[in-house]
Amino acid sequence: MKVYRIASIPGDGIGVDVTLEARKVLDRAASGFGLEWTEFDWSCERYLSTGSMMPDDGLAALSSFDGILLGAVGFPGVPDHISLWGLLIPVRRAFSQYVNLRPVRLLPGTSSVLAGRSAPELEMVIVRENSEGEYSTLGGRHGAGEPGEFVLQESVFTRVGVERIIRYAFELARTRAGRLCSATKSNGLIHSMPFWDEIFAAIAVEYPDVVAEQCHIDALAARMVQAPDRLDVIVASNLFGDILSDLAAAVTGGLGMAPSGNINPSGSHPSMFEAVHGSAPDIAGQGIANPVAQILAGAMLLSHLGETAAAASVEAAVEKVLSDGAVLTPDLGGTATTSELGSAIADCL
Amino acid sequence: MKVYRIASIPGDGIGVDVTLEARKVLDRAASGFGLEWTEFDWSCERYLSTGSMMPDDGLAALSSFDGILLGAVGFPGVPDHISLWGLLIPVRRAFSQYVNLRPVRLLPGTSSVLAGRSAPELEMVIVRENSEGEYSTLGGRHGAGEPGEFVLQESVFTRVGVERIIRYAFELARTRAGRLCSATKSNGLIHSMPFWDEIFAAIAVEYPDVVAEQCHIDALAARMVQAPDRLDVIVASNLFGDILSDLAAAVTGGLGMAPSGNINPSGSHPSMFEAVHGSAPDIAGQGIANPVAQILAGAMLLSHLGETAAAASVEAAVEKVLSDGAVLTPDLGGTATTSELGSAIADCL
Ligand SMILES: CC(C)[C@H](C(=O)O)[C@@H](O)C(=O)O
Ligand SMILES: CC(C)[C@H](C(=O)O)[C@@H](O)C(=O)O
Repeated sequence: MKVYRIASIPGDGIGVDVTLEARKVLDRAASGFGLEWTEFDWSCERYLSTGSMMPDDGLAALSSFDGILLGAVGFPGVPDHISLWGLLIPVRRAFSQYVNLRPVRLLPGTSSVLAGRSAPELEMVIVRENSEGEYSTLGGRHGAGEPGEFVLQESVFTRVGVERIIRYAFELARTRAGRLCSATKSNGLIHSMPFWDEIFAAIAVEYPDVVAEQCHIDALAARMVQAPDRLDVIVASNLFGDILSDLAAAVTGGLGMAPSGNINPSGSHPSMFEAVHGSAPDIAGQGIANPVAQILAGAMLLSHLGETAAAASVEAAVEKVLSDGAVLTPDLGGTATTSELGSAIADCL
Repeated sequence: MKVYRIASIPGDGIGVDVTLEARKVLDRAASGFGLEWTEFDWSCERYLSTGSMMPDDGLAALSSFDGILLGAVGFPGVPDHISLWGLLIPVRRAFSQYVNLRPVRLLPGTSSVLAGRSAPELEMVIVRENSEGEYSTLGGRHGAGEPGEFVLQESVFTRVGVERIIRYAFELARTRAGRLCSATKSNGLIHSMPFWDEIFAAIAVEYPDVVAEQCHIDALAARMVQAPDRLDVIVASNLFGDILSDLAAAVTGGLGMAPSGNINPSGSHPSMFEAVHGSAPDIAGQGIANPVAQILAGAMLLSHLGETAAAASVEAAVEKVLSDGAVLTPDLGGTATTSELGSAIADCL
């Protein structure tokens, strides 16, 4: 029997609560194969006691796993730019997880904040660039404390980086509705986005079967609430993809439902799966966090490992429990705990 | 009688259609003072025939006016980064219009795309930084055509620039609900946004009467559709403000209703007023564009000139016609033309 070695990094806040449930569900879904878990306590708590989010050889320790399940990172008292750049972002980059795949759809039993929109109109996937762009260490501060003080923050877009993410999105669009929308802002960001647009246009020629369009990020955010039914696959830079995927999650089932995969398409390094939501420290440990996003992230992990039947069974179990409506966390209008919802889903498997 | 000299730049596409209506309404609203209009044909059309969006002495020509009414800029065949950086953005910068003020609210007779939300819950104002930030000419391309090709796009945040916009927003919050939310992304953009946050925190201390909070742009976009009632004044960088204001317009009455002011608070140079929407070339000249946003931009212009009674009468006229519901453009569910809606509003004055 094939046994996959999975690294689990629950992290901070509700990351811990929901990762426990995802493991519970995945273990139940594993049939015909096994999952061997190794847990890492890398977190803000670790940072506060040791001075670093993960050990020096952390990346090396992760590199031999078949996959990584990450909870969420971030906690009051630790500046975000330390917690994230000390764990989440280095993993994304060191392991060439250049695709951040963020599918959203309105699940059965849930409703949208948008008036009169039902499930078939609310299903899309954001293909977010995950290795460069606006998230960059280049830049710095000049003249601290002086009247003329300023900071520079550089965005970096490489041809290699832009081509590979756009190509990935076209390939994905081909397997879905055959439509791809590229998020741009070439009217404001006159170096980076015209370059992005130029590469998008050049690659579009190779995919005559895909209807390709581009839309400025401001107009695209508006479209996402006004005409979400006309969107299917969206390709976006790191920052634009971050914004659009939270917004897309919010107009579909909410942040409690949206999974994401940090994917290395070549398989040269492990890929990492996580909920789109953050660590929500204010509700951590209270048993009220919705574990669905993390459970669906677990399904994406199974699917990435090639265990598509098990992945589908997890998705089906989530749908069944949500349609039944008997066991729902408070954000879904119920009174169940995180663990009760996790168990209900596991019990459907 | 005081006569204000106003520069009108209809620009491109529906900018021309809606500016005509705004002038019609403002002329009717002018009582006890006069408006003397000078029209400038600066546009993409001008660019295509002369090679520039405006003449070399364009900024000098504008500088003596009491205010500027701008339609919209942008047309197919002219790259956006030429049309915008050849007209809109130079005016914003040369005239130190460092505040882009974007109030949105659900107007009577219209409904929100958000389920179950009514007018009092949907009213906010975005205070957008308008002179620096992500919109920067710094940056460029390295190694064009080479495999290692990349572009850099620099964001620039100065202490002077960040302090003045945040201070403006706190002052405004004080005159409204006493709440201010700052858009950030310090977990991803580790040079610019921690600097922004630091200045926000320092200035917040001077305004103990204002409840100040900050929110990452991704979460804030989600909040705007999930809990818009808890937002009032939002202060944001140039790019974040651009995205949030389109989104805010979309969840309230739609882009056809949202005005904006590019404001120089010191009055050392003229301020410029425009709709948030773009030139929408696909529907230009057909008489179907909604002129309300531009008419409300005109009201902001009057208010900026100190003619607050006239400004209020324009707003009241817009509300009256919208509540009546007899004369509405197609985007509002009616069959009236741009000009019929403009005239109906003018006739209420
Ligand atoms: C046209 C574009 C450059 C402009 C901007 O992004 O500033 C517009 O979207 C706006 O919001 O005024
Ligand atoms: C926590 C933060 C750095 C992260 C990001 O912006 O990438 C998160 O918002 C996400 O979407 O995964």
